[in-house]
Amino acid sequence: MKIARCEVQGEIFFGVLEDEEVREFNFDDNGELQFTGRVVERKNVVLKAPCRPTKIVAIGLNYHEHARESNMEVPKAPLIFLKPPSAVIGPGEEIVLPHDSVRVDYEAELAVVIKRKAKNVKAGDIRDFVLGYTCFNDVSARDFQFSDGQWSRAKGYDTFAPTGPWIETEVDPFNVQVEAVLDGKVVQSGNTADLIFPVPRLIEYITSIMTLFPGDIIATGTPAGVGPIKAGQTIEIRIEGIGTLSNGVRLGTR
Amino acid sequence: MKIARCEVQGEIFFGVLEDEEVREFNFDDNGELQFTGRVVERKNVVLKAPCRPTKIVAIGLNYHEHARESNMEVPKAPLIFLKPPSAVIGPGEEIVLPHDSVRVDYEAELAVVIKRKAKNVKAGDIRDFVLGYTCFNDVSARDFQFSDGQWSRAKGYDTFAPTGPWIETEVDPFNVQVEAVLDGKVVQSGNTADLIFPVPRLIEYITSIMTLFPGDIIATGTPAGVGPIKAGQTIEIRIEGIGTLSNGVRLGTR
Repeated sequence: MKIARCEVQGEIFFGVLEDEEVREFNFDDNGELQFTGRVVERKNVVLKAPCRPTKIVAIGLNYHEHARESNMEVPKAPLIFLKPPSAVIGPGEEIVLPHDSVRVDYEAELAVVIKRKAKNVKAGDIRDFVLGYTCFNDVSARDFQFSDGQWSRAKGYDTFAPTGPWIETEVDPFNVQVEAVLDGKVVQSGNTADLIFPVPRLIEYITSIMTLFPGDIIATGTPAGVGPIKAGQTIEIRIEGIGTLSNGVRLGTR
Repeated sequence: MKIARCEVQGEIFFGVLEDEEVREFNFDDNGELQFTGRVVERKNVVLKAPCRPTKIVAIGLNYHEHARESNMEVPKAPLIFLKPPSAVIGPGEEIVLPHDSVRVDYEAELAVVIKRKAKNVKAGDIRDFVLGYTCFNDVSARDFQFSDGQWSRAKGYDTFAPTGPWIETEVDPFNVQVEAVLDGKVVQSGNTADLIFPVPRLIEYITSIMTLFPGDIIATGTPAGVGPIKAGQTIEIRIEGIGTLSNGVRLGTR
């Protein structure tokens, strides 16, 4: 099932995407879908970012192959960092490069979207807490990441968290291909089978620290092959069994 | 004027605190107060954290004296990091120490609370974007801060962002004394006159990167003298012209 946030003539609502139709629903307090009965033609719908997180918890260095290419030791525990919700954009929206950064990179990632309030969830119990999965681009101003040491600014610019195009509820998070495609060319490719800390372990670890809320995002880390994006290019994040998130790139003004 | 989030018999609302009364209001779209006419006796009100941020932007190493005691160079630009909204607690709520941390520190800070959506705000124009100021404790698991390198986990635990007790609208952010008081003893004391990057510069810098929203918090950094808290202690953050934020400390369960 594909869950989307939809816009029709300025109105925004959640809907389940079907071939030619969208069925509107609301979430109840348990994160279950309550259909309103309203059905809209899909061709009239603009897709927005599919969730509205209270926070984005992202993971550094979580693919074995990426750790090898970075000459970094495999971490003993997940390395978490935060991206602000204000960075989220949806499919088709433009990534804006800071005018004073000389190197902004794409990072293709599988993202988990949280279904209900989650604290101290055990790895074996995650099913009740996961709404589904979506494509995520952990856009990073690499020069600022190294100069600051802390990653919050480098990864926190407005538009630096493209998310979407929808949330797919039926995904096997242990074995999906995660790719970045730059102007039509595959530039990054990995499989979540190579994750150092797979999704259940991430949820257990993060919820032992902080409470997650409905719509919150866990960005599970990026595979080998990150690289730069430039103004005028189009960067796609393509995940097997989910779909393709596409965003243009432009230069910000001073 | 003191702005508080108030609870009466399970109902939560914003109110202006007066000596014996609380006057209920709602924020309009510009962050202005619209009074409802309802007045509640102050003695019947429990104070909650005074705002509900979409993000908390905090500043590392922002007092000259603290930079000196840390043997760190004065930064050329503000060093920003993020704390998750899930860490916020209000006055009187308990800070919970992670069972596996050996060193959790208090950090007394002056916090700015944002009034309205703010992007690319110039230092000279901040007045329209600041609702007021409150006391903030940037609680930090110091061992995890150093072992992770990134600070998000160490500063991101649930209960690690005590905020309050209210928002004071009439504060001179260039000259207030900021203190931490541990079990009645002053353990940290500094004045915002010693800030490396004062409030207008912080708002200009942060909003050149990311959009701030109503209720968002900027924690302006901590003065010299940080130190540990233990289960059973009470830590107060006391700021001249605002008031005192008091929180107990307990040990979390495994």
